[in-house]
Amino acid sequence: MIEITLPDGSIKSFESGITPMDVAKSISEGLARNVISASFNTETVETTTPLTSNGSLTLFTWKNEEGKQAFWHSTSHIMAQAVKEMYPDAKLTIGPSIERGFYYDIDFNGTSISDKDFPAIEKRMLDIARGKHEYKMRSTTKAEALEYYKSIDNEYKVELIENLEDGTITFCDHDTFTDLCRGGHIPNTGIVKAVKILNVAGAYWRGDENNTQLTRLYGISFPKQKELKEYLELLEEAKKRDHRKLGKELELFTFSQRVGQGLPLWLPKGAALRERLENFLKKAQKKAGYEMVVSPHIGQKELYVTSGHYAKYGEDSFQPIKTPKEDEEFLLKPMNCPHHCEIYNSKPFSYKELPKRYAEFGTVYRYEQSGELHGLTRVRGFTQDDAHIFCTPDQLDQEFKNVIDLVLYVFGSLGFENFTAQVSVRDLDKPEKYIGSVENWEKAENAIINAAKEKGLDYVVESGEAAFYGPKLDFMVRDALGRSWQLGTIQVDYNLPERFDLSYKGSDDKLHRPVMIHRAPFGSMERFIAILLEHTGGNFPLWLMPEQAIVLSISEKYEKYAQKVLNLLENHEIRALVDNRNETMGKKIREAEMNKIPYMLIVGEQEAENGTISVRKHGGEDIGSISVEEFSAIVNSEIRSTLKEFNV
Amino acid sequence: MIEITLPDGSIKSFESGITPMDVAKSISEGLARNVISASFNTETVETTTPLTSNGSLTLFTWKNEEGKQAFWHSTSHIMAQAVKEMYPDAKLTIGPSIERGFYYDIDFNGTSISDKDFPAIEKRMLDIARGKHEYKMRSTTKAEALEYYKSIDNEYKVELIENLEDGTITFCDHDTFTDLCRGGHIPNTGIVKAVKILNVAGAYWRGDENNTQLTRLYGISFPKQKELKEYLELLEEAKKRDHRKLGKELELFTFSQRVGQGLPLWLPKGAALRERLENFLKKAQKKAGYEMVVSPHIGQKELYVTSGHYAKYGEDSFQPIKTPKEDEEFLLKPMNCPHHCEIYNSKPFSYKELPKRYAEFGTVYRYEQSGELHGLTRVRGFTQDDAHIFCTPDQLDQEFKNVIDLVLYVFGSLGFENFTAQVSVRDLDKPEKYIGSVENWEKAENAIINAAKEKGLDYVVESGEAAFYGPKLDFMVRDALGRSWQLGTIQVDYNLPERFDLSYKGSDDKLHRPVMIHRAPFGSMERFIAILLEHTGGNFPLWLMPEQAIVLSISEKYEKYAQKVLNLLENHEIRALVDNRNETMGKKIREAEMNKIPYMLIVGEQEAENGTISVRKHGGEDIGSISVEEFSAIVNSEIRSTLKEFNV
Repeated sequence: MIEITLPDGSIKSFESGITPMDVAKSISEGLARNVISASFNTETVETTTPLTSNGSLTLFTWKNEEGKQAFWHSTSHIMAQAVKEMYPDAKLTIGPSIERGFYYDIDFNGTSISDKDFPAIEKRMLDIARGKHEYKMRSTTKAEALEYYKSIDNEYKVELIENLEDGTITFCDHDTFTDLCRGGHIPNTGIVKAVKILNVAGAYWRGDENNTQLTRLYGISFPKQKELKEYLELLEEAKKRDHRKLGKELELFTFSQRVGQGLPLWLPKGAALRERLENFLKKAQKKAGYEMVVSPHIGQKELYVTSGHYAKYGEDSFQPIKTPKEDEEFLLKPMNCPHHCEIYNSKPFSYKELPKRYAEFGTVYRYEQSGELHGLTRVRGFTQDDAHIFCTPDQLDQEFKNVIDLVLYVFGSLGFENFTAQVSVRDLDKPEKYIGSVENWEKAENAIINAAKEKGLDYVVESGEAAFYGPKLDFMVRDALGRSWQLGTIQVDYNLPERFDLSYKGSDDKLHRPVMIHRAPFGSMERFIAILLEHTGGNFPLWLMPEQAIVLSISEKYEKYAQKVLNLLENHEIRALVDNRNETMGKKIREAEMNKIPYMLIVGEQEAENGTISVRKHGGEDIGSISVEEFSAIVNSEIRSTLKEFNV
Repeated sequence: MIEITLPDGSIKSFESGITPMDVAKSISEGLARNVISASFNTETVETTTPLTSNGSLTLFTWKNEEGKQAFWHSTSHIMAQAVKEMYPDAKLTIGPSIERGFYYDIDFNGTSISDKDFPAIEKRMLDIARGKHEYKMRSTTKAEALEYYKSIDNEYKVELIENLEDGTITFCDHDTFTDLCRGGHIPNTGIVKAVKILNVAGAYWRGDENNTQLTRLYGISFPKQKELKEYLELLEEAKKRDHRKLGKELELFTFSQRVGQGLPLWLPKGAALRERLENFLKKAQKKAGYEMVVSPHIGQKELYVTSGHYAKYGEDSFQPIKTPKEDEEFLLKPMNCPHHCEIYNSKPFSYKELPKRYAEFGTVYRYEQSGELHGLTRVRGFTQDDAHIFCTPDQLDQEFKNVIDLVLYVFGSLGFENFTAQVSVRDLDKPEKYIGSVENWEKAENAIINAAKEKGLDYVVESGEAAFYGPKLDFMVRDALGRSWQLGTIQVDYNLPERFDLSYKGSDDKLHRPVMIHRAPFGSMERFIAILLEHTGGNFPLWLMPEQAIVLSISEKYEKYAQKVLNLLENHEIRALVDNRNETMGKKIREAEMNKIPYMLIVGEQEAENGTISVRKHGGEDIGSISVEEFSAIVNSEIRSTLKEFNV
């Protein structure tokens, strides 16, 4: 008999050799119907794996991330089978599940695959699925495994197996298909009811561009047809909201091959948007007692050796900048903190002067592989809304709460209402992993947890997730399409104050080490604007819009009146422009809609006579004919409803 | 007989062999008394050089820069004579005149020289000067010259002579002293009436740190004792206003050895000052139709190869930034123009959309030798208030005028009232030196000259001073100490539009090349703030001051009232702070004076009772007891008197 501990803490006895699926059945038939994968003592197992020792069992359904991963990974086997049947010369390499779906990298031996080939493959995949074939794991010796793949002439699998230890070689079989595989499958293919191959891309074997280029087929699958439909609709909507597409359409930013990949050039409307966001945060930060500083974008290599960043970013990053003088080398700054430490170090502080809160919109540079770059979310140069708070250990509690207030203010003002938080603390079993005194760690962890509690955050505490230099709080924001983004980290740091020998004079007249807090509510201007674009689809909160209104003249006859309205709007500090072109009103409205302009102000004979404007909201709502003053009141009230003052 | 053309265009005949001094005498005895040097056909000559061909002669007095240079160079011979007499082992190297005064680099053979030794040297110099010894040029063969310096064991002069061509070796003799010298002296030593050795510094032979370190003695001299006195007073005042000293005292900026030389760190007060200056210019630029853009601080090497900057800044600058990918190299940007060209290139423009005016506070990096660095005026990283105007050739005229308006507005708002301008045009004799059509050059040069005339500038036109890619206008501003600074350049450019293949669609529906204007009214934030600090001694215009007022409480009893006053001031948007320390009022006022705070607001019993403040101006003027509202009116009126709106 063995003892199985379930997630609710209950312990049940079973005969040795029982499978996870048997355990599910022993709990309820309903559960058994829904279980699609399992883990035993945190290791992934099959639902059919015999359990032969005491341990903890977790059963997963489609609702769990782990269940989805098993589902998608299992579907990649089905796709591989379909491909091998249809393209016998194809050589399989690897086929993992990913965040959403799965892919398989395949050497098609010269055959070119396009989206025209997808429907046939999908059809065959569904045929196979309907066969309800069980997934069965099988162990072989290394020699046997090698022999098999050599016999079918697959040099990729041979290479993979050569890197494995003997005895760990497992295959997964279903129907007529077999594949080298570590395990983690659903019970049988029949659960897969809907499949879609999403796209095809090139991918180098093992990610190395010197190797053969393979064909990567991306796919997704679901247990219900309806879910696939919904997912494809979401994809469609996400495509429309892709910040790269919107950024181009709204003329916010551009990239230039000559300037370099991953280095955005901000066009006038985008630069103005950035500036509005910066001013918004600056204003709140000023109220919260931050002081702005300005530091250079490079520093001597020595600075980053001191900070430890050189060791971290060294070889994979932008290399040191040499100068005509041999011993002078500089680095593009990957972080602003070393500079801010040196600013703190430029004069002595007493405890009475702390906290010092240095803020900077600091542009930093980090080298990313060109394949990793993506619009504004993965770039090589970005501007952090950075700040570093230098405080006494006793002030940490209050400072942390203040930073949370600021982050929540930012989220609220920008329409992110759905978020959770994670507190990352030490692994208490591995004290050797962390620097700083146990007393300070306890103080800091308690400060963060108390602050999260007091501010009513929906948070989880993750043990062992803290950095070696301090605990932290991360916010995960859910956007309008239900996707999660990490925004806003607050990090406690005991390391840099040590490395830069920072100090303050305490009330005991002795020198003490301050604590440092790193924080960035936006994260970076680039990534934040990308997320905001995808969250709002370009329909930013009114206070942030590049243009808040457009005056549309019914004909060129009313050009003069349109200009007068524009001047009035400017006096009311409403950002607006005029469309006086000799085009139909329908076309003008369509274009204004496409440009996401929140208010269209139509002017013709009647309006010119009465000194009014006919107001149409983006999306179609008709507000009627009103004066510019009345319109200004509407605009101001709408702005006030989202953009409140920050209260310390 | 030869014909001598004088600067007024008149031509006089003289016997061949006449000297410049003879010509002076033939004009007037008064002129002859004042003439101290001369040039013939733009070459420097002695006043005693016999003229043997037709040519143009210019005579210089102390009032001319050329006269001063000859005066100071001649004094360096006197100093060298004095040093050789007093330190027979010393070896002379080079002793040129500089912008203000002269220096001599000397190998003192192990003897260390300090300012304690200066008076004795100065005394001996004046003794020599009083001897009224004539300066006499003498030619020798290279062999003779080498033999002489080998005989007195001076390897430096030997090295210098070895690099000269035979037949060009000249010496200058006066009294018992002789020195290798190209010429350009005053008639005799007697004109030098006042001398001062200013300081001593180390200098490597030929500026190469691998060579021997020499002793550099800096000196200055004048034809009148009174002028020396005035100059030393000016130096004293300049020392007090040294921006490096004021920047530290006022906590505006700092440098860190770890971050690197020449890379300023802006402290909170300095960063806020910068921001106020930037916002001031942004506001005016917005009115003038500029659009802000943001570009990265690096670009692919290829970008700067295209722009030509790589060829210009190549070897002596920051070297390319390598990456893990071999063919990807980046450069720190030395200029913003290539990025702005790429922004212009990101979409097609019609002539109706021009001019486009892209502005950016763009931080650029240029490597300077560490010996060249000086506070904020010579740095390795600086932020230009940059803008590039892309316009049609026909728009150049108006755009140029608009830029001049903006520059004059900036100067006026910041208290620079004393300035001249220089228009740099082509050398018409060397058309091959310039790119762009003759028609465009004429258009541009006329545009600049017309604009300068129309705007009433005090300008000179310098032929041959234009860059190869276009004519320009420079402003020279005179500061409160009478020193000149170049501020504000407006440069026309035909080159970059060509290199970046920029175009716009004309009214003829064909593609045309736009003209580009580079302009920066401040030049750079760093250099401008340095000059402003030295010009104002830290007493900036009120709108710019880090703190506009300080509330000084007579005792701690009035702390609460002081705080109330501070809040009121903040409501009136006056930047202020409180000094509630338990110190004497005398001390508080002294410190506020030292911190250059324009208004001291003293609060005690009477003020608390009456709800007033007793206002004392920086410098001592007593304004009396008034309300915060009245004070706010004074502040606003003072601000309005310097900071006007920019009217386009």
